[in-house]
Amino acid sequence: MQRISAAADDTGYLIALGQAIRALRKERGFSQEALAHEAHIDRSHMGKIERGERNVTILNIVRICLILGCAPSQLLVHAEEGSRSG
Amino acid sequence: MQRISAAADDTGYLIALGQAIRALRKERGFSQEALAHEAHIDRSHMGKIERGERNVTILNIVRICLILGCAPSQLLVHAEEGSRSG
Repeated sequence: MQRISAAADDTGYLIALGQAIRALRKERGFSQEALAHEAHIDRSHMGKIERGERNVTILNIVRICLILGCAPSQLLVHAEEGSRSG
Repeated sequence: MQRISAAADDTGYLIALGQAIRALRKERGFSQEALAHEAHIDRSHMGKIERGERNVTILNIVRICLILGCAPSQLLVHAEEGSRSG
């Protein structure tokens, strides 16, 4: 069975998504601790999400976006723009 | 500590996302089995994702979108439109 080698792209997506979350969080004036608290996500897990080290679930994305006042789709647009340009 | 009650919205998002995946899959002419195989996702897990019964990870969304030829952000736009209208 042939395997699609998407590992490199996948890592890139996680990093770009983490950067998009961090940028939006700072724009909204939240500390990482405050966002983690409000979104009910463990603080060290939030740090790993922002560094692209965790395969974040859609519900955590929804919770983060709820606090930051952004549609999940829009956050992903930012991530995809970042991943194309950087 | 005050808790944000987002459970109902969360469930709605998973259901809308699953419906968006199913709609796009059918539009692209994939069976559920074929999509699961191509995206390297267990077939029964794929069924649960489409029914909104699983908290899908971003990497599985990326893999599904890679096969279906759709940006992850665009899939979420479809989910959010579905969740608003339905």
